[in-house]
Amino acid sequence: MTGRPIDVLNEAKGKNVMLKLKNRTQISGVIKAFDMHINVWLEDADVTDAEGNTAKLGNTLVRGDSIIYISPAQ
Amino acid sequence: MTGRPIDVLNEAKGKNVMLKLKNRTQISGVIKAFDMHINVWLEDADVTDAEGNTAKLGNTLVRGDSIIYISPAQ
Amino acid sequence: MTGRPIDVLNEAKGKNVMLKLKNRTQISGVIKAFDMHINVWLEDADVTDAEGNTAKLGNTLVRGDSIIYISPAQ
Amino acid sequence: MTGRPIDVLNEAKGKNVMLKLKNRTQISGVIKAFDMHINVWLEDADVTDAEGNTAKLGNTLVRGDSIIYISPAQ
Amino acid sequence: MTGRPIDVLNEAKGKNVMLKLKNRTQISGVIKAFDMHINVWLEDADVTDAEGNTAKLGNTLVRGDSIIYISPAQ
Amino acid sequence: MTGRPIDVLNEAKGKNVMLKLKNRTQISGVIKAFDMHINVWLEDADVTDAEGNTAKLGNTLVRGDSIIYISPAQ
Amino acid sequence: MTGRPIDVLNEAKGKNVMLKLKNRTQISGVIKAFDMHINVWLEDADVTDAEGNTAKLGNTLVRGDSIIYISPAQ
Repeated sequence: MTGRPIDVLNEAKGKNVMLKLKNRTQISGVIKAFDMHINVWLEDADVTDAEGNTAKLGNTLVRGDSIIYISPAQ
Repeated sequence: MTGRPIDVLNEAKGKNVMLKLKNRTQISGVIKAFDMHINVWLEDADVTDAEGNTAKLGNTLVRGDSIIYISPAQ
Repeated sequence: MTGRPIDVLNEAKGKNVMLKLKNRTQISGVIKAFDMHINVWLEDADVTDAEGNTAKLGNTLVRGDSIIYISPAQ
Repeated sequence: MTGRPIDVLNEAKGKNVMLKLKNRTQISGVIKAFDMHINVWLEDADVTDAEGNTAKLGNTLVRGDSIIYISPAQ
Repeated sequence: MTGRPIDVLNEAKGKNVMLKLKNRTQISGVIKAFDMHINVWLEDADVTDAEGNTAKLGNTLVRGDSIIYISPAQ
Repeated sequence: MTGRPIDVLNEAKGKNVMLKLKNRTQISGVIKAFDMHINVWLEDADVTDAEGNTAKLGNTLVRGDSIIYISPAQ
Repeated sequence: MTGRPIDVLNEAKGKNVMLKLKNRTQISGVIKAFDMHINVWLEDADVTDAEGNTAKLGNTLVRGDSIIYISPAQ
């Protein structure tokens, strides 16, 4: 309840997260690193487009500027 | 009536808020943290799209750049 | 005629204002606080969409980045 | 021919100007103040939409980020 | 070949230039001043829309953020 | 697992990467340099548009602002 | 392989480059100067629109914010 919102991403490190992107796609993968711009490094990532088609990306650096929200798997 | 607008979000901490996003969706959840960029950490969040379909997100970090407005529940 | 444009918002504090937003909606409410990014805190706010439908928001933090113009009630 | 472009707006203070906005509308009014972000305070302003319909705004703060160009009346 | 690109605009001062804008219009006029954000002050300006219709603007301050490119007359 | 996300691009230097761009195209090439804005220099680059047509670009500087994500070949 | 991506543009000075722009046009010309924002000064430039129509621009200052990528001629 204290600290910055992005500090909370620390708890998600090494776990699976879902990133909703501005271009109407979403990417799922294991979060390995992030910075204050919310640039995110994922491993074992997949991308799903607006029509539901999925493609494997593997390691991926996602620019924070393209991210709407990030939701850790539960 | 004094202070910065985002300070007023402090009163909303731990309570339910609605975030209107630029991509024509809205997210509701319990606000746990925010920063000066209005990045917001929510717990127990749901997303509703422009057609009214709702999906459960759980914990979610929303980037301030994607937010139009935030309205605490009343 | 002197000072910064946003200083003029000080005179509007506690009064009703209309905010025109980039997403083709407008929000009316009582302005309680604002900052240099023109983030605005409103009380007793209502939102009206491009088709003229109105919904009650209550307290609302509007991000300055989404605002086109602000017009105090006369 | 010297100085910054926005300094030239000083000569327009108290006079009528036309602001062309990114949302395909334009606003006319008497310019009372502006800042380095080209945020502009107008008095006695009117807005005209892309179809030519005009509405009275009165006092209005226009965010510089929404302005394409400003043209003083001649 | 040395110096910053915007320094080269100094040579265009007092001459006619064409500004291509993001809103699919272009503006021609005599460049009198500019700054590091490429905000530009023009005299005797005309605007031409995407359909080729031209209107007289006279003195005009164009925000750099709306400019795609600037081309001095030859 | 430590460090900044963009540091991880160091491991990709000299290898093939795929850049997904905001204009619905993607570029593949050998990454030679990048900076903190995620501007990227590629050698032997190809661009593929949304319809799947490919064209050879050779050496290319891609502005970070246009990049959604970067995925090294595996 | 060392240095910043934009330093690599130094090697292109005085040579022909192609700039892909966000407004679905591209500009070719001889690069004479650039800065850290990737604002670019071209000589003897031509613009080609999405339909393939070409027009002569001559000397042109292109704002970096409008550029997707730059590719030197080979």
